[in-house]
Amino acid sequence: MLINCVAYQNGRKLADIAVADISEYVARPDCFVWVALFQPTNEELDEMAVEFKLHPLAVEDARKGHQRPKIEEYEDSLFAVLHTLETAPDDPDARLVRGEVAMFVGRNYILSVRHRTQKSFAEVRARCEREPELLRNGSGFVFYALMDTVVDRYFPILDGVESELEGIEEQIFVHNAARSNIEALYALKQKLMVLKHAIDPLMEATGKLYGGRVPQVCTGMGEYFRDVYDHLHRIHETIEGIREMLTTAIQVNVGMISLSENEVTKKLAAWAAIIAVPTMVAGIYGMNFKIMPELEWTFGYPFAIGLMAAIDLYLYSRFRKARWL
Amino acid sequence: MLINCVAYQNGRKLADIAVADISEYVARPDCFVWVALFQPTNEELDEMAVEFKLHPLAVEDARKGHQRPKIEEYEDSLFAVLHTLETAPDDPDARLVRGEVAMFVGRNYILSVRHRTQKSFAEVRARCEREPELLRNGSGFVFYALMDTVVDRYFPILDGVESELEGIEEQIFVHNAARSNIEALYALKQKLMVLKHAIDPLMEATGKLYGGRVPQVCTGMGEYFRDVYDHLHRIHETIEGIREMLTTAIQVNVGMISLSENEVTKKLAAWAAIIAVPTMVAGIYGMNFKIMPELEWTFGYPFAIGLMAAIDLYLYSRFRKARWL
Amino acid sequence: MLINCVAYQNGRKLADIAVADISEYVARPDCFVWVALFQPTNEELDEMAVEFKLHPLAVEDARKGHQRPKIEEYEDSLFAVLHTLETAPDDPDARLVRGEVAMFVGRNYILSVRHRTQKSFAEVRARCEREPELLRNGSGFVFYALMDTVVDRYFPILDGVESELEGIEEQIFVHNAARSNIEALYALKQKLMVLKHAIDPLMEATGKLYGGRVPQVCTGMGEYFRDVYDHLHRIHETIEGIREMLTTAIQVNVGMISLSENEVTKKLAAWAAIIAVPTMVAGIYGMNFKIMPELEWTFGYPFAIGLMAAIDLYLYSRFRKARWL
Amino acid sequence: MLINCVAYQNGRKLADIAVADISEYVARPDCFVWVALFQPTNEELDEMAVEFKLHPLAVEDARKGHQRPKIEEYEDSLFAVLHTLETAPDDPDARLVRGEVAMFVGRNYILSVRHRTQKSFAEVRARCEREPELLRNGSGFVFYALMDTVVDRYFPILDGVESELEGIEEQIFVHNAARSNIEALYALKQKLMVLKHAIDPLMEATGKLYGGRVPQVCTGMGEYFRDVYDHLHRIHETIEGIREMLTTAIQVNVGMISLSENEVTKKLAAWAAIIAVPTMVAGIYGMNFKIMPELEWTFGYPFAIGLMAAIDLYLYSRFRKARWL
Amino acid sequence: MLINCVAYQNGRKLADIAVADISEYVARPDCFVWVALFQPTNEELDEMAVEFKLHPLAVEDARKGHQRPKIEEYEDSLFAVLHTLETAPDDPDARLVRGEVAMFVGRNYILSVRHRTQKSFAEVRARCEREPELLRNGSGFVFYALMDTVVDRYFPILDGVESELEGIEEQIFVHNAARSNIEALYALKQKLMVLKHAIDPLMEATGKLYGGRVPQVCTGMGEYFRDVYDHLHRIHETIEGIREMLTTAIQVNVGMISLSENEVTKKLAAWAAIIAVPTMVAGIYGMNFKIMPELEWTFGYPFAIGLMAAIDLYLYSRFRKARWL
Repeated sequence: MLINCVAYQNGRKLADIAVADISEYVARPDCFVWVALFQPTNEELDEMAVEFKLHPLAVEDARKGHQRPKIEEYEDSLFAVLHTLETAPDDPDARLVRGEVAMFVGRNYILSVRHRTQKSFAEVRARCEREPELLRNGSGFVFYALMDTVVDRYFPILDGVESELEGIEEQIFVHNAARSNIEALYALKQKLMVLKHAIDPLMEATGKLYGGRVPQVCTGMGEYFRDVYDHLHRIHETIEGIREMLTTAIQVNVGMISLSENEVTKKLAAWAAIIAVPTMVAGIYGMNFKIMPELEWTFGYPFAIGLMAAIDLYLYSRFRKARWL
Repeated sequence: MLINCVAYQNGRKLADIAVADISEYVARPDCFVWVALFQPTNEELDEMAVEFKLHPLAVEDARKGHQRPKIEEYEDSLFAVLHTLETAPDDPDARLVRGEVAMFVGRNYILSVRHRTQKSFAEVRARCEREPELLRNGSGFVFYALMDTVVDRYFPILDGVESELEGIEEQIFVHNAARSNIEALYALKQKLMVLKHAIDPLMEATGKLYGGRVPQVCTGMGEYFRDVYDHLHRIHETIEGIREMLTTAIQVNVGMISLSENEVTKKLAAWAAIIAVPTMVAGIYGMNFKIMPELEWTFGYPFAIGLMAAIDLYLYSRFRKARWL
Repeated sequence: MLINCVAYQNGRKLADIAVADISEYVARPDCFVWVALFQPTNEELDEMAVEFKLHPLAVEDARKGHQRPKIEEYEDSLFAVLHTLETAPDDPDARLVRGEVAMFVGRNYILSVRHRTQKSFAEVRARCEREPELLRNGSGFVFYALMDTVVDRYFPILDGVESELEGIEEQIFVHNAARSNIEALYALKQKLMVLKHAIDPLMEATGKLYGGRVPQVCTGMGEYFRDVYDHLHRIHETIEGIREMLTTAIQVNVGMISLSENEVTKKLAAWAAIIAVPTMVAGIYGMNFKIMPELEWTFGYPFAIGLMAAIDLYLYSRFRKARWL
Repeated sequence: MLINCVAYQNGRKLADIAVADISEYVARPDCFVWVALFQPTNEELDEMAVEFKLHPLAVEDARKGHQRPKIEEYEDSLFAVLHTLETAPDDPDARLVRGEVAMFVGRNYILSVRHRTQKSFAEVRARCEREPELLRNGSGFVFYALMDTVVDRYFPILDGVESELEGIEEQIFVHNAARSNIEALYALKQKLMVLKHAIDPLMEATGKLYGGRVPQVCTGMGEYFRDVYDHLHRIHETIEGIREMLTTAIQVNVGMISLSENEVTKKLAAWAAIIAVPTMVAGIYGMNFKIMPELEWTFGYPFAIGLMAAIDLYLYSRFRKARWL
Repeated sequence: MLINCVAYQNGRKLADIAVADISEYVARPDCFVWVALFQPTNEELDEMAVEFKLHPLAVEDARKGHQRPKIEEYEDSLFAVLHTLETAPDDPDARLVRGEVAMFVGRNYILSVRHRTQKSFAEVRARCEREPELLRNGSGFVFYALMDTVVDRYFPILDGVESELEGIEEQIFVHNAARSNIEALYALKQKLMVLKHAIDPLMEATGKLYGGRVPQVCTGMGEYFRDVYDHLHRIHETIEGIREMLTTAIQVNVGMISLSENEVTKKLAAWAAIIAVPTMVAGIYGMNFKIMPELEWTFGYPFAIGLMAAIDLYLYSRFRKARWL
């Protein structure tokens, strides 16, 4: 589905143009075309490939989707794939939905193809159009603005993961929470891996957009792409930190399970003793010996009961002190 | 066994030729020869070595098989070994069968030697012959097409591994599935290692087929080999992700075992108490003291039984609340 | 809040100057301006950006805070972010409070922006002013002095972490300390990760301030920045060492939990035997057989009691020897 | 002990020569000397050092042995140390015996010094002498032939380790094999580490014998040394794979121990119940209440026994169903 | 404390000289001064700094001590810090005592500063003076000789660690050694980390003293420093090997704890059964039914006792067979 197809000149919107006119505008040296597609049909994509003269391998990747994040050079144009991550709006704890944005960036065009992503990039276009002095930088700047937006959208997800971890950490030493903790830790790890697979290849690729040899469409924008790289690096480090804490948390949680098993065993042992001792005493006074003086005593029975109670009280207080009960 | 031996000119099939004529066609600057062998005898391989003037070390590797995946330069020719992975058709969960494809690629010849691999590459030849404008690129393009096919065949296996992991993940927090989970996780790890050993060295080697200094037979095909590299990189990252989740899953599974042991211990303790308390009471009323008023009561016996039942009901409800039962 | 705004010439303080005069002093080739801000308002920061001609991306980072430590070049100036770590004064074991110091360093100015950091850098200014021969080196030297101070303040925190680890290590083989150990180890790991995230990126960035290609404002100061790098490297290695010992300590602690469970089980088993055997004997003499000679014996009852005691004494001494009790 | 001391010319054996004549033959440009020592005395080694003009540090290393595998350049000669690994012939499962082969390789000499290694290299000499066209390449080729032989001898040991791992894997889910599994896994790990320490440094060193800047004595042999490197790389990867599976196998085995503990606990609980319930019933009918109607019944006793049996049968079948028994 | 202050010329001792004369001798092109200090006072160090013209940052490091091992260039001189490790003479198993040796090496002087190290380097001086042809190489050779000595002193400590590991490995599958094993493994890990922190940074630094760009004072000594590097590399690899085996040993030890818990549980279960069954039988014959034929039998009592004994014998032999007892 075609969302937008606009030509810009000198940082200002020239006109909404027809798809068939794209190649004409692209040929003009002083203007650039910015097209946005959402889950295009094969025909739409083929038409774009013709208008923009896109490389067949790149078009094939954009068509099939399910690429890893990457930024590839094809002669003097770039082909970039970014993952978008969205939480289902009704269930923020659920698995992340992974979408994709593919971008074709040439000297005077940029084409974005959005797949399985709810949130559009209309706001990026609006902001760019409000800042013509920046938009004058052309397709390279739009490319930066789109990447920056995708990357900025990772932060709330990362914050969510961090606060989920903190939530689990508060539960980790609580009794009887082991099962739910371990399930939550595993689910968090899955989420983290999705995030990691979106970030790491992109960070690596972005690192080549500033510094030494830079693709032509990005020249003069070094500080901007370094800023994106820096954000990605920050996310990367936070992910690594969470990953390590997750491993430790699982290890600690298994330890807590053993510890709580330990406590159950102690409790079991203590109560077993408290029941077994009176049973033994009762067994003794249930023996059938002819001569058992206590049996003849007037207060033999209360004495026996008292004996049992006294032993049990003693045991109970000892177990209490030893914190077995 | 010789499968095919064909000479091509200008991207079009010239003729099926005799093995003895190969060296003659190879000598022609404008045509190339594409030979496919399947588990060749020593004699067949020696004959090829003579016709194509292959390096003895490479021939030795192709003869013996059991090489690690690699791409080696011998002067202006390449020797490549790729692993093929196939599941037994009747048992998709079984161990993977590892075969090998060795390829000798020169300026105007390509020789593929297939070992322990059911699936042939006839479809590659057919597709190449349908696209003469691409086949015109010569042996380098055929080399790409064969690699691409081998790599594409890894994807369904990887998908199988991923869905096996998902299957286990659904079982991981289910009661009494610990043993089968742990067996499945171990088997999956074995499968993953086979896949990893097929991918990683190949990825590393493929990375040298585009970019800076490139073997002569691959020049001008950089974007195609980068595409293969990209697929391998994607598989590599998925494998690493699964590997990490497997480690976590095993760790979590061991935790679940401890947890379920914990629950058995609690159940055991609860039932032990429920049986032990009436036994103690019975023991007390089985004592032989002369004076035990309850024994004389008309409803002493029902009272004792009632006492036992009451205590047990109380215990049962407490254990229920505490989720020990 | 503006803390200080001073112009220096030839290593000596020239005058406290007004913010509006900064750009005038910065323009003089032979003097430099050193400004310190503490949690500035947006207006203060904007004014500085104008006076010093700061890059908007850097200003944005200083305004928002929550950056990872970094040192970035903007043309011939540097933008550095360092984390400050402070313990709450009333609770040294509590979580570390992470603050930030952002620094803008140009050929003849340095601007420091302190966020969420109690301890000021007044002492650095005082020391610098006492050593005019060093301060003569200009903004590069002040940059070094500030970095050195921030890094030196990591050492007492690191020492605290080390002695906490030693404290836990002394407890690790002590009975019944498993729960508190494991909680302490987890808290220590969290602290360590905070420290690690402050150090590692900074170390990497500092490594570029000496040796080969060095930013202009740092030239001639190589040995000083190498000294800072060396301190950071030392902290880094200590952190890595602690991290590895922490992992081992957690593993060992889980082992100690299992071991202590083992001992509880043994104790439980021993006492169960000591109670169960007399109960069995009592049961036997409680049988109602017509002919049971012992029951007729005068000393049958003491004999039975003696038998029970003898068996128990024997069991007790055996369990003692086997260290089950 | 001197094993051989032979001069070669043009790839053919010239003569067995006396040690004292070595320096004379080494001086001839068109011939080379190949000497083999086995556990030489200090005097033998000193004599060789004089004849070949060996570097004192290298001689010292060859004398003391216990070096790590390495290949060092001393001006235009090489000094190489390789580990040989042998299994005791009577006990293939025992620890590996580590020997050493040191080699001094100059433009026209090669001296091998064998320590603690049963198997000689006589076969290498024999094969070389049968292939004069290869031996014509001089000391560099002999160096290759010896390295190739040492490396080839690692393969059966690696195969042994692999099949030991497979043997353990078949046992890993078998009941009651945990102790022997864990011992076998630990012993295997020890073996693997010995292998790893022989391979990894050698692989690294061999990687410098082909490609870019190559020691003079190896020039023109690049493809041969790459072949050795390739074998070492294959062994290295197999070792890494086994190492990872070993870690997983130990982890899984610990899980299986917990699981089997779990099963013992369940069995224990089940039998305890089956014994405790009749004991309780017997206790009840052992109470001394005056009025207990059942006691008067003619079939009271069989009824009680029947009750016990019925309860136990019911329990037994339930435990069976739940797979506790 | 000043230990020695000697001037050398042409590899031979010239004279013991006064500290105040050092700068005079250092100025002579053909001689060099070798000074040894042991825990110097601030004044001694300041005097040296003046005489040798040392860099203030290096002097500061030598004064404060507690540096990580490093080799730093200051213009044409070197500043090196090495860790010395010593075991307390009366307790070889105790923690290692870490000392430091700082060395200032210039074109014609070397100054060593020893901290917290019992063993002096007098032997190095004596050996150097016995080999004037080597000592002629000047301060670079003395630097090598001191480093070589420090590194050689690591080997007995490493051997101690290795044999401690072997000692634990022999105990690891022994019953009831779990607690002492785990304590020993932890202590060994601590020792290993101390060793690792002494070796790894030094190895890295030493790697820069030979090969490509080498500090001036080390030129022409490449093979000697490579030898030191090689020793450090060997120690490094042994440490890594021990580290991995330690991790595995701890893991295995935890497994053995679980296994032994398993065995205790089985023993407990077996004995519980052996006691519980007679108790049940006794309970049955202790019931008060009017009609219980066995009670009337003449040999009822022996029959009951026999029954109990028979069941127990049967149980005992079954448990024995199942290796529960």
